[in-house]
Amino acid sequence: MDIDLLAQTESLFALSNGHIGLRGNLDEGEPHSLPGTYLNSLYELRPLPYAEAGYGYPESGQSVINVTNGKLIRLLVDDEPFDVRYGELHRHERTLDFRDGVLRRDLEWTSPAGQRVRVCSTRMVSFVQRSIVAIQYEVTPVDAPARIVLQSELVANEQLPPPGNDPRLAALMEAPLEPEETYPNHTGVLLVHRTRHSALRMASMMEHIWDGDDDVLVTTDAHPDAGSVTLSTTLEPGQRFRLVKLIGYGWSSQRSRPAVRSQVMAAVTAAKHSGWDGLLAEQRRYLDEFWARADVRLDGDERMQQAIRFSLFHVLQAGARAEQRAIPAKGLTGSGYDGHTFWDTETFLLPVLTYTAPQAAKDSLRWRHSTLDLARERATQLGHTGATFPWRTIRGQECSGYWPAGTAAYHINADVSDAVLRYVNATEDLDFERDYGLEILVETARMWISLGHFDAAGRFRIDGVTGPDEYSALADNNVYTNLMAQRNLRGAARVAKAYPDKAGEFSVTGAELDQWSRAAESMYVPFDERLGVHPQATGFTDHERWDFDNTPKEKYPLLLNYPYGDIYRSQVIKQADLVLALHLRGDYFTPEQKARNFAYYEALTVRDSSLSACTQAVIAAEIGHMRLAQDYLREVALTDLDDLHHNTGSGLHMANLAGVWLGLVAGFGGMRDHDGALTFAPRLPAGWTRLKFGMTFRGRQLRVDISPSEASYKLQDGEPLTLRHHGQKVTARVGKAVRHPIPPVLTPAPVHQPPGRPPLTGNPVFPWSNA
Amino acid sequence: MDIDLLAQTESLFALSNGHIGLRGNLDEGEPHSLPGTYLNSLYELRPLPYAEAGYGYPESGQSVINVTNGKLIRLLVDDEPFDVRYGELHRHERTLDFRDGVLRRDLEWTSPAGQRVRVCSTRMVSFVQRSIVAIQYEVTPVDAPARIVLQSELVANEQLPPPGNDPRLAALMEAPLEPEETYPNHTGVLLVHRTRHSALRMASMMEHIWDGDDDVLVTTDAHPDAGSVTLSTTLEPGQRFRLVKLIGYGWSSQRSRPAVRSQVMAAVTAAKHSGWDGLLAEQRRYLDEFWARADVRLDGDERMQQAIRFSLFHVLQAGARAEQRAIPAKGLTGSGYDGHTFWDTETFLLPVLTYTAPQAAKDSLRWRHSTLDLARERATQLGHTGATFPWRTIRGQECSGYWPAGTAAYHINADVSDAVLRYVNATEDLDFERDYGLEILVETARMWISLGHFDAAGRFRIDGVTGPDEYSALADNNVYTNLMAQRNLRGAARVAKAYPDKAGEFSVTGAELDQWSRAAESMYVPFDERLGVHPQATGFTDHERWDFDNTPKEKYPLLLNYPYGDIYRSQVIKQADLVLALHLRGDYFTPEQKARNFAYYEALTVRDSSLSACTQAVIAAEIGHMRLAQDYLREVALTDLDDLHHNTGSGLHMANLAGVWLGLVAGFGGMRDHDGALTFAPRLPAGWTRLKFGMTFRGRQLRVDISPSEASYKLQDGEPLTLRHHGQKVTARVGKAVRHPIPPVLTPAPVHQPPGRPPLTGNPVFPWSNA
Repeated sequence: MDIDLLAQTESLFALSNGHIGLRGNLDEGEPHSLPGTYLNSLYELRPLPYAEAGYGYPESGQSVINVTNGKLIRLLVDDEPFDVRYGELHRHERTLDFRDGVLRRDLEWTSPAGQRVRVCSTRMVSFVQRSIVAIQYEVTPVDAPARIVLQSELVANEQLPPPGNDPRLAALMEAPLEPEETYPNHTGVLLVHRTRHSALRMASMMEHIWDGDDDVLVTTDAHPDAGSVTLSTTLEPGQRFRLVKLIGYGWSSQRSRPAVRSQVMAAVTAAKHSGWDGLLAEQRRYLDEFWARADVRLDGDERMQQAIRFSLFHVLQAGARAEQRAIPAKGLTGSGYDGHTFWDTETFLLPVLTYTAPQAAKDSLRWRHSTLDLARERATQLGHTGATFPWRTIRGQECSGYWPAGTAAYHINADVSDAVLRYVNATEDLDFERDYGLEILVETARMWISLGHFDAAGRFRIDGVTGPDEYSALADNNVYTNLMAQRNLRGAARVAKAYPDKAGEFSVTGAELDQWSRAAESMYVPFDERLGVHPQATGFTDHERWDFDNTPKEKYPLLLNYPYGDIYRSQVIKQADLVLALHLRGDYFTPEQKARNFAYYEALTVRDSSLSACTQAVIAAEIGHMRLAQDYLREVALTDLDDLHHNTGSGLHMANLAGVWLGLVAGFGGMRDHDGALTFAPRLPAGWTRLKFGMTFRGRQLRVDISPSEASYKLQDGEPLTLRHHGQKVTARVGKAVRHPIPPVLTPAPVHQPPGRPPLTGNPVFPWSNA
Repeated sequence: MDIDLLAQTESLFALSNGHIGLRGNLDEGEPHSLPGTYLNSLYELRPLPYAEAGYGYPESGQSVINVTNGKLIRLLVDDEPFDVRYGELHRHERTLDFRDGVLRRDLEWTSPAGQRVRVCSTRMVSFVQRSIVAIQYEVTPVDAPARIVLQSELVANEQLPPPGNDPRLAALMEAPLEPEETYPNHTGVLLVHRTRHSALRMASMMEHIWDGDDDVLVTTDAHPDAGSVTLSTTLEPGQRFRLVKLIGYGWSSQRSRPAVRSQVMAAVTAAKHSGWDGLLAEQRRYLDEFWARADVRLDGDERMQQAIRFSLFHVLQAGARAEQRAIPAKGLTGSGYDGHTFWDTETFLLPVLTYTAPQAAKDSLRWRHSTLDLARERATQLGHTGATFPWRTIRGQECSGYWPAGTAAYHINADVSDAVLRYVNATEDLDFERDYGLEILVETARMWISLGHFDAAGRFRIDGVTGPDEYSALADNNVYTNLMAQRNLRGAARVAKAYPDKAGEFSVTGAELDQWSRAAESMYVPFDERLGVHPQATGFTDHERWDFDNTPKEKYPLLLNYPYGDIYRSQVIKQADLVLALHLRGDYFTPEQKARNFAYYEALTVRDSSLSACTQAVIAAEIGHMRLAQDYLREVALTDLDDLHHNTGSGLHMANLAGVWLGLVAGFGGMRDHDGALTFAPRLPAGWTRLKFGMTFRGRQLRVDISPSEASYKLQDGEPLTLRHHGQKVTARVGKAVRHPIPPVLTPAPVHQPPGRPPLTGNPVFPWSNA
């Protein structure tokens, strides 16, 4: 138990179903780094100040809040509060169980007065009953009889630590919840609150079940911001006392106090009916189904194998039951980035969820769709037609306070469209395509037309935008943006033609379709003939190279130590941008261009963002830099587990965690899905003996099994499926796997990173076992 | 007396000597738009907030404050307070006298109770005694005897109107002054205050002299934030009571309370010694000398003639006694732009002051020099060598809260250097060159070297900067910036070579000199071969043309109605940028390039800044668009007089006022001063019969007299001077003027402005007479 690592463990051990999120705080509440209980999209508004205001700057932002904390169970042993900082801690183990979907804690502690107890707790956020958190808390005296008191609490407006200067940390908002109602009963408490400015109503309720009712004195206490149920009993050595705490959460922006209160009471009653064992069994069943679809097996690297499951589990937790609410960049594991959603969701998380939990991908895209009216308003405000999605938001309004790295990152609109096209292709969910996808595609296509223009040479240019790389801004013809906009425009035209009646409802005309197609086909993609590479944007390769040699290690991340102006005018890359285009629009580039581009940008990319290494892994693997790909994948896998970016404490990097799967499946599996064709080009790095993964594609379960020499493809169910393996047509069927040899890798010319910026190998900050 | 025009008249009738500034508030204080008493560089700090913070953003800004108001004289007539809003105002005239340097007011008013009085006041801020304000206040009953009470006040922390949403308005700071001392005596009061955060100490003192001591009851009252001297008397009809109020101001960041107090007492005592008539005589003498040097006579346009003297008078007021403090963009006429100084000073004001009041130009440049340590610190913070002057400041620290239109506008460094080179050339002040100029030139040259780089083709590029035009930002190779940096580098190398010992003190090496010269000679200046024009910056001419046709009139200024992103990515120009390069670096361009460039940019320039029309006037005249030049000059002349930008109320646009002189002398006089050569190419527009102006050049008084057909040059004093007239060598001497014919103008191809943006003709908002 290393108290210095509390922040990290609170994030790593976070539990969530996408609707409720609990940081891995200790049951007894203290010590803590950041107490965290979150409800998806329950936010408070805060003013966004500007030293110099500008037209279209958002005036208020949305910040996720720490809601009423129901996970508190304090223990007193002979009146001595259990606190790991006092007495003697003999053993303290916490285990995040990916199969059972619970966080287990097992410890033995001797109080300062000499009483030794064993405590086992199991905490769960139910995937099946999405309003429910359940905790089983067991305490057993070891050597001598003991008086035991358990105080189970509900606490609103917990005091939070003051925020630092790092802009990535959430704004502190003191006491955002105004109490509305307090309902105690014999064995539980219900509290209703409302956020002060955003006017969102929430209810939280705790209920308890325990063993040996006769010997237990129970008292209940309730105040507007705190409820507690106290259980007092005396136990013999070896006699275990077991408490099950059920917590229900509900919230609404519209429903009445009684409605929200009743909704939570009903949820808790249903959970009580299921009982602890029932909840546990449901949770296991839900996860069994997930792992059957989505598990990735890697032989030859046990540590990586564990990191893979860790990442898949958290990606599932972030998206499983988000249900038409946003998936934040840090899921519900911390308040980092104010709980905002960015392009991360569509570009990194949804490609994983589309193939492993397609319903979650659909829900997420339906959330985007639900924000279209706001995006249309924003487009109008910005002088565009169509819709402009916000760079960062919770509910849908733009919350970015620095437009050159916010609103100017128009690529998010193409990223959303790309996710729509991918989801529909992977699922053949034509209802979604017609009822949701079409409108997104149409409105974003319109935005591109109004943003860009045809130049004198007839090329369609998109000027003054910021691409994925946030170390450049306001450039012309960012290659990634232009190529993704091209896909957006083509997709919009194709889908609008497929549903002429529906498209007619959005007033799409034939002339408009022609315009989209013409812009797509005339899309300008700059190329630097001198260097033989694509500039990230017009003029990029003319800029001065960043002085890497004179940049000491401690000056990274650069954005915290150098002015934007200096960074923007230099050739230095925070995160894959052109290289991300090589992945997502790999269909545009020749293999030679990919190799040259990768080598050029590799030498400039410092990875001050967690949204880079996975893309570099994918393209390194495609080009044949197998060792480098492996190293990048390791960095991806360790980013949170070893806190490589030093901010895991404020929440996990969900997109990066999704990047583990992308690195494996798109990288070493060579999976691509351009324009509806599912293709593979698998190849394992030295040391790995087997990589096996499953994907859901068009209603079928595909299993891919890769060894150093060959790959096999088979279906678990459904009609045969035609794929490609290293360019060759392959038909996967139920039953016998088709096996294909893997062609030898042609060793490419070596590449290098900026001095001091090779892939991070990790430096285990705490032991994580291989169990 | 139009109360709706109070804001404008308060600015237009402002008095200042560059050290003290008084807005033209009514003597009785009310009604007012914005009460204003300013002391140059007496500012308060205020936090600069950011929705998303960034490295190098200034954390606090400096805002000019409204200091203790000493100009208040309230009048009671038979206990009825004189207020123009009540009773009947028969006559109310105010006259700003450019020869006497006073503001006169003459009115007759009948009180609600029927008492008619005449009031004459004369207000002066002394050019000669720079700490002194003097007011003569005369009141005469007209029809019947009257009891008259005059309350003369000193008021600190006056309540100010709340600021609007316009970012150009000053931040409101309530009660910035903390009282330190209060000193009443029989006939005066002295108050000492200190600013809360910037810790600047100021003292203000009033003293009074009046007629007819025997009949006057005097009482004095003093509180920490208010002092008053009340004089009560009874007058017969036609009997005049005359009060002279002397106000002294002093402030210091370092000196003690007694020192500051004594300094003000001494100043007031000296002024008392001079007496009202003495002060008036000194003021007249000071201005006689100025007008003898600097007056401009224009025959054929009386209204313009008056506007010329109005502008010259205000430019003098802004700079005369600034004495090593900054000259703010609005002088000391209002709190607009927070009282900050920008590049306006060096690029627009100093070219006028250099030739009309060279001592003021020198003082201003010595102020810049005094901020070099701060500019070096800022350069270090930004990762540059040398010095980086702030975009906006009072004391020298960067106060810009939006870096793409602040810190990124590096051209200010070249603008300062250009002003140094001009001043030295025009004055041959070699002491200044060695002791001040050299260091500025060296440190700015170093900054350019570290900012720019040599590209693969050996060209010196300066990327990611913002030029003068604030409707573009963060562009590569802004032509204006690059050409001005070239002059900066050349000047630094030349001057450093001239003072090798002094240069050695700044560690200038031969290698460094070579580098400056090489960068200057390799300076990259982009050219668009397709269009045959210089792009404002690399890629500018590829951008989409702003949709002028669909921009309604009320959407100007664009920056208040469209997002920066939209504006930046379009071809639309706020203010002369490339066209300013045509003026200041006219030596670089061929006449054909000038004509083509002017035509191209004329069609894109909307003049949402007041720093544009004068430059367009200058280049229009050079190219031969005489009528257009005249129209632009009219716009310049009317900008404040007719409130064309709708913000004259927050202060006069000093650079624009300087632009009147520039439009005349550089425009119709064709005066240029590239690299030390003084040249003229005069040419009058239709309707003007004569333009005559004086300039101080290398210690001589040069008089230029232009008629439609010829120009004559002569000196008032000194050795003969070689000039050029339309390219032809001319020697001006004392005595007989040399006359040269003006070659006929070749009518150039027509140019046009964006729809709805022709030169503004003005729409007189209040009558200003031709007296």
